[in-house]
Amino acid sequence: MEDFNLHLTGDIHAVGVAHNLLSAFIDNSLSKGNPLDIDPYSISWRRVLDVSDRALRNIVIGLGGKADGVPRESGFDITVASEVMAILALTTGLKDIRKKLGKIVIGLNKSGKPVTAEDLKAAGAMTVLMKDALTPTLLQTLENTPALVHAGPFANIAHGNSSIIADHIGIKLGDFLITESGFGADIGAEKFMDIKCRYSGLKHDAVVLVATIRALKAHSGKFTIIAGRPLDPGLLQEDTDAVTKGCSNLVKQIENMRYFGVPVVVAINSFPTDTAKEVEIVKAAAKEAGAYDAVVSDHWMWGGDGATDLAEVVADASNQPSDFKFLYELNLPVKEKIEIIAKKIYGAKSVSYSPMANKQIAKFEESGFGDLPICMAKTHLSLSHNPALKGRPEGFEVPIREVRASVGAGFLYPLLGTMRTMPGLPSVPAGTNVDIDEDGKIVGLF
Amino acid sequence: MEDFNLHLTGDIHAVGVAHNLLSAFIDNSLSKGNPLDIDPYSISWRRVLDVSDRALRNIVIGLGGKADGVPRESGFDITVASEVMAILALTTGLKDIRKKLGKIVIGLNKSGKPVTAEDLKAAGAMTVLMKDALTPTLLQTLENTPALVHAGPFANIAHGNSSIIADHIGIKLGDFLITESGFGADIGAEKFMDIKCRYSGLKHDAVVLVATIRALKAHSGKFTIIAGRPLDPGLLQEDTDAVTKGCSNLVKQIENMRYFGVPVVVAINSFPTDTAKEVEIVKAAAKEAGAYDAVVSDHWMWGGDGATDLAEVVADASNQPSDFKFLYELNLPVKEKIEIIAKKIYGAKSVSYSPMANKQIAKFEESGFGDLPICMAKTHLSLSHNPALKGRPEGFEVPIREVRASVGAGFLYPLLGTMRTMPGLPSVPAGTNVDIDEDGKIVGLF
Amino acid sequence: MEDFNLHLTGDIHAVGVAHNLLSAFIDNSLSKGNPLDIDPYSISWRRVLDVSDRALRNIVIGLGGKADGVPRESGFDITVASEVMAILALTTGLKDIRKKLGKIVIGLNKSGKPVTAEDLKAAGAMTVLMKDALTPTLLQTLENTPALVHAGPFANIAHGNSSIIADHIGIKLGDFLITESGFGADIGAEKFMDIKCRYSGLKHDAVVLVATIRALKAHSGKFTIIAGRPLDPGLLQEDTDAVTKGCSNLVKQIENMRYFGVPVVVAINSFPTDTAKEVEIVKAAAKEAGAYDAVVSDHWMWGGDGATDLAEVVADASNQPSDFKFLYELNLPVKEKIEIIAKKIYGAKSVSYSPMANKQIAKFEESGFGDLPICMAKTHLSLSHNPALKGRPEGFEVPIREVRASVGAGFLYPLLGTMRTMPGLPSVPAGTNVDIDEDGKIVGLF
Amino acid sequence: MEDFNLHLTGDIHAVGVAHNLLSAFIDNSLSKGNPLDIDPYSISWRRVLDVSDRALRNIVIGLGGKADGVPRESGFDITVASEVMAILALTTGLKDIRKKLGKIVIGLNKSGKPVTAEDLKAAGAMTVLMKDALTPTLLQTLENTPALVHAGPFANIAHGNSSIIADHIGIKLGDFLITESGFGADIGAEKFMDIKCRYSGLKHDAVVLVATIRALKAHSGKFTIIAGRPLDPGLLQEDTDAVTKGCSNLVKQIENMRYFGVPVVVAINSFPTDTAKEVEIVKAAAKEAGAYDAVVSDHWMWGGDGATDLAEVVADASNQPSDFKFLYELNLPVKEKIEIIAKKIYGAKSVSYSPMANKQIAKFEESGFGDLPICMAKTHLSLSHNPALKGRPEGFEVPIREVRASVGAGFLYPLLGTMRTMPGLPSVPAGTNVDIDEDGKIVGLF
Repeated sequence: MEDFNLHLTGDIHAVGVAHNLLSAFIDNSLSKGNPLDIDPYSISWRRVLDVSDRALRNIVIGLGGKADGVPRESGFDITVASEVMAILALTTGLKDIRKKLGKIVIGLNKSGKPVTAEDLKAAGAMTVLMKDALTPTLLQTLENTPALVHAGPFANIAHGNSSIIADHIGIKLGDFLITESGFGADIGAEKFMDIKCRYSGLKHDAVVLVATIRALKAHSGKFTIIAGRPLDPGLLQEDTDAVTKGCSNLVKQIENMRYFGVPVVVAINSFPTDTAKEVEIVKAAAKEAGAYDAVVSDHWMWGGDGATDLAEVVADASNQPSDFKFLYELNLPVKEKIEIIAKKIYGAKSVSYSPMANKQIAKFEESGFGDLPICMAKTHLSLSHNPALKGRPEGFEVPIREVRASVGAGFLYPLLGTMRTMPGLPSVPAGTNVDIDEDGKIVGLF
Repeated sequence: MEDFNLHLTGDIHAVGVAHNLLSAFIDNSLSKGNPLDIDPYSISWRRVLDVSDRALRNIVIGLGGKADGVPRESGFDITVASEVMAILALTTGLKDIRKKLGKIVIGLNKSGKPVTAEDLKAAGAMTVLMKDALTPTLLQTLENTPALVHAGPFANIAHGNSSIIADHIGIKLGDFLITESGFGADIGAEKFMDIKCRYSGLKHDAVVLVATIRALKAHSGKFTIIAGRPLDPGLLQEDTDAVTKGCSNLVKQIENMRYFGVPVVVAINSFPTDTAKEVEIVKAAAKEAGAYDAVVSDHWMWGGDGATDLAEVVADASNQPSDFKFLYELNLPVKEKIEIIAKKIYGAKSVSYSPMANKQIAKFEESGFGDLPICMAKTHLSLSHNPALKGRPEGFEVPIREVRASVGAGFLYPLLGTMRTMPGLPSVPAGTNVDIDEDGKIVGLF
Repeated sequence: MEDFNLHLTGDIHAVGVAHNLLSAFIDNSLSKGNPLDIDPYSISWRRVLDVSDRALRNIVIGLGGKADGVPRESGFDITVASEVMAILALTTGLKDIRKKLGKIVIGLNKSGKPVTAEDLKAAGAMTVLMKDALTPTLLQTLENTPALVHAGPFANIAHGNSSIIADHIGIKLGDFLITESGFGADIGAEKFMDIKCRYSGLKHDAVVLVATIRALKAHSGKFTIIAGRPLDPGLLQEDTDAVTKGCSNLVKQIENMRYFGVPVVVAINSFPTDTAKEVEIVKAAAKEAGAYDAVVSDHWMWGGDGATDLAEVVADASNQPSDFKFLYELNLPVKEKIEIIAKKIYGAKSVSYSPMANKQIAKFEESGFGDLPICMAKTHLSLSHNPALKGRPEGFEVPIREVRASVGAGFLYPLLGTMRTMPGLPSVPAGTNVDIDEDGKIVGLF
Repeated sequence: MEDFNLHLTGDIHAVGVAHNLLSAFIDNSLSKGNPLDIDPYSISWRRVLDVSDRALRNIVIGLGGKADGVPRESGFDITVASEVMAILALTTGLKDIRKKLGKIVIGLNKSGKPVTAEDLKAAGAMTVLMKDALTPTLLQTLENTPALVHAGPFANIAHGNSSIIADHIGIKLGDFLITESGFGADIGAEKFMDIKCRYSGLKHDAVVLVATIRALKAHSGKFTIIAGRPLDPGLLQEDTDAVTKGCSNLVKQIENMRYFGVPVVVAINSFPTDTAKEVEIVKAAAKEAGAYDAVVSDHWMWGGDGATDLAEVVADASNQPSDFKFLYELNLPVKEKIEIIAKKIYGAKSVSYSPMANKQIAKFEESGFGDLPICMAKTHLSLSHNPALKGRPEGFEVPIREVRASVGAGFLYPLLGTMRTMPGLPSVPAGTNVDIDEDGKIVGLF
């Protein structure tokens, strides 16, 4: 790790500046006579920063007098949650991103009509700031396999997929393209299919669903896992009962993937502590649930050689007949689309809406945004909205706290439960351990 | 301009993230029981953003309840005003920046003792974020002359000089190193000598003072110049009277540079509208004021060929005997140092201090920061603190509104008059003209 | 109206000062080292003002620096919503109010224990400020009937009853005491019985339920009534259908009153536009619903003479056997008590709780406040929480947004739907018409 | 102290409600489309509360969304600092107060023109709220001497005089009227003459300047006096040196009073610890400074009998010829008027103005308010603006931080040094000692 660059591709920086340029244009317009007649209370476009900083979630800006802007309530999100990041991953090129950036809706005017980045004349400059970020960064693995790294929207608060541009390039450069979908098949993969595939026009030939014995044990509900604390030693010993119980989660994820009509291969990402019995339980459960196959992969140990079996099965699966279909039609009412995802994918019994969410949905439908796909902001720690519900929860009600419209990116964006778009730091931030050592090498990152 | 990248070196992005990481650590510490007993009212470390955004100058953060931080007043500065940017330009390498970042003082604890980035355990992670920014970016001119681009602190709100690291590299790579000092010799060059030279241990052999006929005419006070409006046509016609009057500014700048004991060459950066008579006035005035010589340069038209005369004169001047000395000794009281700069360089009659500035200076001296050099935040539009005073103003009083301590970078930082550390946008921001054209080329940047 | 004094009894002023003294003591304690270790986020004690001022509902206080307090979010309520006002109406005398004021809970300390006005040493001074307000003001009607005016908590945002002290005095001074219970029998009268009677130990001999033909027509749902606009002319014409429909509201109110076991007399407060047929419908409906009788009263026209019939019926009713009982037992869980009121009195199908309300109820029960009676803050414009639901609404869900504890007054205080504790002014405030005329007489009050 | 009523006259309550009604009208107008085009940044009309509450000095109001007003910075003053209180004391009757309330300027519209309470249609309702407060409250001393108590503007933050109405009544009811002028002859009495006499048209026949030996000792600068701490025992022993030194203050106050052309009697308000030698020093100094006489009074011990000597001397003095004149002419520039008071009365060498104060003065003169008299907000603890300067300070500069316009009351209102219009509480507020005892009597007030 001699020369690790934390800024890597620069995508996040470009997204941050482009996003905040639009924010500054909004407040500048308010303080220069408000020529677009923007309703300041309606502004949903916040600012972003690439730091976990809870103190910026809710702020009052524009204090200090006339020269210092118009006072109003606003806040910051983490940059990966920016609509500009979502757009970067969903765009197909320079002219397309220009158009999408222009369509960003920042709020309403006093007559209730949407105000866009185009109206504010910010979309051109935003495009110029994003121009160089449009080209994916080509990295290579230790075995010199090429890897395109591009865009970074987290699946819990955004759509969780790498870029369409990188996929288009990758498809042309090799026999197979493996593209990653966020974390949690219930969020990343669902959004891959219902959002990204709709915009890319591409279809996948197979789904690789990654599972670990350890995570499935955790889904048994027998263990308490706290970030930053040592693991429960029970997770490191054979526990066939826990694996069996936790497989309920895997089974549901396989069922979910099969709704989309494409073969599903389960990759068991092996740990040294996995036992043969445990592996067998997972394989059996996966196949019973309809997986094409379930294969152990130990690339973490052997590199490419460790993944040969998996690769062959995935190649086979890709040659099977498939019949890809979306989970929902776009022309359904917004609430119906939300409920299809919540019930079919998460296993919920019902969905409830806060008064604000109800108003927002009505307003979006009235504004002509009702036909957009849905991008749920949901925890990745449970199939439900509640991180505490492990395995395959049922009978729960999904609370929709708020709904935002990412019209430029092309989706509506419900916030489930207490899901936040700006994280906070723990009592001892991981960063306190990061430093350089005597030789100038980075320490404490992992 | 086919492939202009607005993010260029990435320095600003790295500075912004490192700066804001420290900000997040501060507020996190406050909301996690405040183990360092930080006095929240004393926190002078703000946040930064690389956008002109007046609405962020004065904000209230930490609203929304216990999970969302501790409410307090704060604000954002523009990233180039960050102490981290100043440190980047003044550091000599990785271990040095680690130390300097650790020494940043963010405020006081409840016993009135300084609290540092080291105390908050943020300096290691900040160093790692800055690590790759330590290497200057090597660009080339259209004639393939190498140019190191590194760091970007503006001279009006910071110290205005490119990096010591780039200078050290440049010195070894050629016969001459030309390094730029902010804008305004009264700010950029004064800080070059009194701050940067102190920390680098380097001495320059000659000063090149750049002047234009047009700017000197403007210093006559006969013309009104408003950013964004067409120039007064009077500026484009021969006006020897205006040039003569405006030369008072140049004369003072030459006198100022001569205080430091190094030969001064005036470069007359020519415009097509300059007349021979006007040029003669400037040359005569410069020489009378003690310049080694004054030479017209039209590199803007002819590239390197246009600057040959100038280059030769500068080479000659560099070979003259010189006796470099600082303007003030570090062990003088803070106010005395401020007054030396204000009176000798700006031509002020006196200096006044707001009640806050008085308190801050007393506190800094008590905390042992009294021996630091002074980095004045002052308009570049006048020798005085007041942009309206043209030519060579005299008899004015310089008001010190506030004094900040950049202990990591190693200077005290008085704010003069209404000088701001976060700019605002005009009614029609320049960015509204920036866009891509039909062919995907950037338009509207210039 | 020659000498109308808008300040009348001075009760509201005394309440306001006593209330705000406690507020100032809280913030003073926070800014003087917080010796009681108060958790600033937990402070539920706001400030009060006797003006409708929406801009004070949500504010940030304590800005400006260390000398100006500790920044935090808070707000103002209207003075009649103050717990001190509720206490004034529920106290039995000087020593009792001293005790009740001391028991006011203003928030929690950092260990989660309640902090009281006693802990802040504010209750003594508050008592002294309230001392003279303890004596009711004796006024007289135009016919010289004595009337005690004392305290003024509105029934929609407080408990809606005049004082126990005035009742105790009144009972001793005449044969009958008529005491008023807020507005809306579903709020004022329910609180009279379940809260005031519990604390006074007094029992009433009869309920007089006041109805108007016009209001019952409005409850038909056929008419739109907007404050400040002329009445729908339909309300001024005979409309037996509307009266019949609207009687559903009266019937429910009679049923409600009968739960408490005391005879109910309906007073039909006549309007010149009432027709005989309409009156008959109301009388019939009232009797069928179990009222002891329903009598027209036109005291508005004839003074005491107009109310003789009513008075005699009420006297008769008071002599009937009665069996007063509370609606709920205090030792039930808080949610059960809320649901009894919502379902039995309002006719709701169910009750929902916001996440905040759930937390508050759990906290109150943990703190030992679970045994207090319930004081619902609800609109008076509907039996439900929704002003738009007229007549006798059914099948609705009552949303509890927030629950406050008035431990000094002795009740828990749920806020239903969007019920606010600080009103706002309309576009043309009524006060714009108020003035003095040429002769110094007040005009525009009515 | 059996029946002490802290609310006494009710004046403060009426003032508070009338003041805050106007505040609510302002924010209501802003949030209802701002029909008067008020510039929100220009609003100088704050809110008031009759509690010392530093946390309300600087607040952000109007948070929470569109229904909750327009966000802006504002704050509260203590009610005695309200312009409405100043008006109550300076008005001559109902029609006059109606007019004065209408002339209150709350800020500017976007064209820079003043916006008044009349424009907001609030002055009528304010008058009605003030109507009953126009009648002074008649109290009596223990010896049954009548005393009119009316209005309460403190002299340090307002004009410090009781009402013109009470004076007009009192003059007609007896041979002599004694009226009180705030505290500190340099503030209360100066304002009596330059402001109140101008508006009442009345002239006084003599000045009674009250002095104590103890206060004069304190003005020697030998003793440190801290509110709430026991007195330095040195103040209780004979100390002729301290008295002699402290007399410099008395001498200056006598000189000041003599500028106005009316005889000055010094009343030595005796303490049991005063010695004959000390009294003689004071008498001699007073006479030498031009006092008509200096007389000891011990009414604190003997009631009226103790003040007979004083009364006779005052009666004699009143019969002396006098030539009352104002300190300054109204038509002088604002700064000149301020400087006359600062130099002649306070003994200052010069006056400095903050940038804000300069702007405000220019704006007021432009708006036609330049002819108003000046009401300095200054500490009563020193002749200067600095409480630490005792005796007769000289050579100091008076800093004017801010200037407000009380156009309704009829004066301009400079704030000197750090003078505040909302006090704060000490660590142990006096109110913590106030309570009722076993018998319901008030304790702890004195």
